[in-house]
Amino acid sequence: MHLNEKTKDSSVVYDGKIFKIKKDTVILEDNSEAVREYVIHHGGVCILPVTENNEILMVKQYRYPLAEATLEVPAGKLNSADEDHLEAGKRELLEETGASASSIEYLGEIYPIPAYTTEKIHMYMARNLTFTEQNLDSDEFLDVVKLPFDEALRMVMDGTIKDSKTMIVIMKAWLLLNK
Amino acid sequence: MHLNEKTKDSSVVYDGKIFKIKKDTVILEDNSEAVREYVIHHGGVCILPVTENNEILMVKQYRYPLAEATLEVPAGKLNSADEDHLEAGKRELLEETGASASSIEYLGEIYPIPAYTTEKIHMYMARNLTFTEQNLDSDEFLDVVKLPFDEALRMVMDGTIKDSKTMIVIMKAWLLLNK
Repeated sequence: MHLNEKTKDSSVVYDGKIFKIKKDTVILEDNSEAVREYVIHHGGVCILPVTENNEILMVKQYRYPLAEATLEVPAGKLNSADEDHLEAGKRELLEETGASASSIEYLGEIYPIPAYTTEKIHMYMARNLTFTEQNLDSDEFLDVVKLPFDEALRMVMDGTIKDSKTMIVIMKAWLLLNK
Repeated sequence: MHLNEKTKDSSVVYDGKIFKIKKDTVILEDNSEAVREYVIHHGGVCILPVTENNEILMVKQYRYPLAEATLEVPAGKLNSADEDHLEAGKRELLEETGASASSIEYLGEIYPIPAYTTEKIHMYMARNLTFTEQNLDSDEFLDVVKLPFDEALRMVMDGTIKDSKTMIVIMKAWLLLNK
């Protein structure tokens, strides 16, 4: 069983509002044992909205664990593990920016932290946008920021944009459209 | 206090081996309250080793939360919040691949999941490599994989490589070297 680990026992050590924490004992490939602590998360989706003028939309919001406001593409968590991630992406895009898209392209998935969370984030690029009203959750406060795609890429390269999904979807979409 | 949240109370709800979990009550900008659950993590470092033949080194290892083996650049967590991340990066590079580098360039930091972890990952690119022996931790099993830089970029673009830090450091270094 090279590059594999077997579960010996498993328990939920914290059952919270947005995630559970599990602590498992596993058997390694040399038959020794180790402890694996990790977050159980339903998964998420992010969506890069690109306007007809080759601008992108991002949202600036306060991220409490980091104690700072970050620039990120519209995103959200799935309501359940089997929620359709395209539908979730359209919902988050509409809620956070007021945009709907008639062209949506799947850009693959991200494992944000393989060491300690089960979360996978699906990525989309949205084009041919039309706008209605932003419709935020009651505990959600954010500013929509629009800027040229090339400027967003520069902000990834110079370290201004640090959120992993945002860095990835901007670079991947830029490479798809420009390389 | 637009785009800010104030701590009302804070408690550690799980104190584990690799992370703590905190659950805080916060005051939002409209004076309502919300709960923030998040992981306290010391932070990490990843390092992209590039050979003189323009190949990169990655490691394939089993990631228990995802129940699969993933391809990732050499990486590790800091031993404490104030550990020098360059030294930690050199240590992980040596332990996981046996490589030392006489040229190391800082590529910035990543916030892998701003919503629920304090972890920040520092990125480096390492060149002018010399090789000695791999020296893994006792509970660490991994295979070193060497492949052309352009092939690694293709594997990011086609979805074979899904780890966030690995996707980011490959695309960012490729853009720095080729754009």
